[in-house]
Amino acid sequence: MRANPGPRLTSPIRRVPDPTVGRLSTYLHCLRALERDGITTVSSAEMADHTGINAAQIRKDVSYIGELGRPGVGYDVGHLKRCLMERMGLGQPHGVLLVGAGSLGSALCSYPGFAEQGFFIIAVFDSSPAKVGRRLGSLEVLSMEELARRNRDLRARIGVIAVPRDAAQGVADCLVAAGIRGILNFAPVKIEVREGITVRNVDLAQEFEALSYYMASATD
Amino acid sequence: MRANPGPRLTSPIRRVPDPTVGRLSTYLHCLRALERDGITTVSSAEMADHTGINAAQIRKDVSYIGELGRPGVGYDVGHLKRCLMERMGLGQPHGVLLVGAGSLGSALCSYPGFAEQGFFIIAVFDSSPAKVGRRLGSLEVLSMEELARRNRDLRARIGVIAVPRDAAQGVADCLVAAGIRGILNFAPVKIEVREGITVRNVDLAQEFEALSYYMASATD
Repeated sequence: MRANPGPRLTSPIRRVPDPTVGRLSTYLHCLRALERDGITTVSSAEMADHTGINAAQIRKDVSYIGELGRPGVGYDVGHLKRCLMERMGLGQPHGVLLVGAGSLGSALCSYPGFAEQGFFIIAVFDSSPAKVGRRLGSLEVLSMEELARRNRDLRARIGVIAVPRDAAQGVADCLVAAGIRGILNFAPVKIEVREGITVRNVDLAQEFEALSYYMASATD
Repeated sequence: MRANPGPRLTSPIRRVPDPTVGRLSTYLHCLRALERDGITTVSSAEMADHTGINAAQIRKDVSYIGELGRPGVGYDVGHLKRCLMERMGLGQPHGVLLVGAGSLGSALCSYPGFAEQGFFIIAVFDSSPAKVGRRLGSLEVLSMEELARRNRDLRARIGVIAVPRDAAQGVADCLVAAGIRGILNFAPVKIEVREGITVRNVDLAQEFEALSYYMASATD
């Protein structure tokens, strides 16, 4: 069970703390934008301007990846981007299976940010006969019975759970049985998986609660 | 500009670290479930079973709220829940304005978890004439021109941005001008707001990247 996974490293690579992992994504987005603008070198101060994260934090976070900055010069944009992507397992596109063709699943299918970062929803499944056969964007919704067989061809390693709470554990079991190794779970419930499977929970209500907390703190 | 807000406390309350804020929400969900089951006392070990977060971490996190546990007995479920809710500004329901009536906005409108935690989407706005006048659940989509006037009556303090990247800053400006104090931003772009306004960014692609990172680490 690794619902709150920490990396298990046997290599001498330094363990990256959880909050840093989120910020590495932010740096990656920033570096991609700089590259699109033709910028080849960037200082931590400039990255701070772009990301809203302070420069000292950026230097500390990047140091987990390696000694990549040159004092007084900054980072090579392309090199830092490649190092970040390699460390994050983003060197090649990832196919993703989506389970749940309701409104959330539909929103996830049309969210342009996934494809931009190399994540492609390549098949959609739903247990409801009313939804099977419908189209979600360019994909036809398939029945849950087809999931394992279909993934023998597709070989996706990432699955997304966008089903009601009560159905989430059953879906997780199906995904793991079909060869999925990482799950992004949008159902507001803890799911149990065997050792070696990574689960990330996205609880949208929790985002509101955190917002409420910071608003309450700001007006103390 | 507080795109990555930290609490600003003038009272002697201890500052709660960002990762803890997310876990406090998890504890709150756990306590609500226990209360529904008629359970009145819970140990940190039992909460660890429910949440997947280890008991020592739970005790440390709860200590930010106050000295609430009794050694050998545990926590009073109702009391801990009320203390957490008060600290997180969750004592009363929050009305929420949603901007963006596309597929993501539609999914957010029908997400049951928000209302369960006391967050109610009470009005939906969109700049597209094709969407204005349509219904999203029980709400009629209103034009952006109506936002400020409508919020004089509704007095919502939380806004959600579910529009494309390029439109997000303009929407944030409208929300702040209409009296919104906290923004949940789903557009994958940094938005600028004045001092005193809290922004929380939800970047769904970043969740995939973090998942990819943990999967890459697990197979090292």
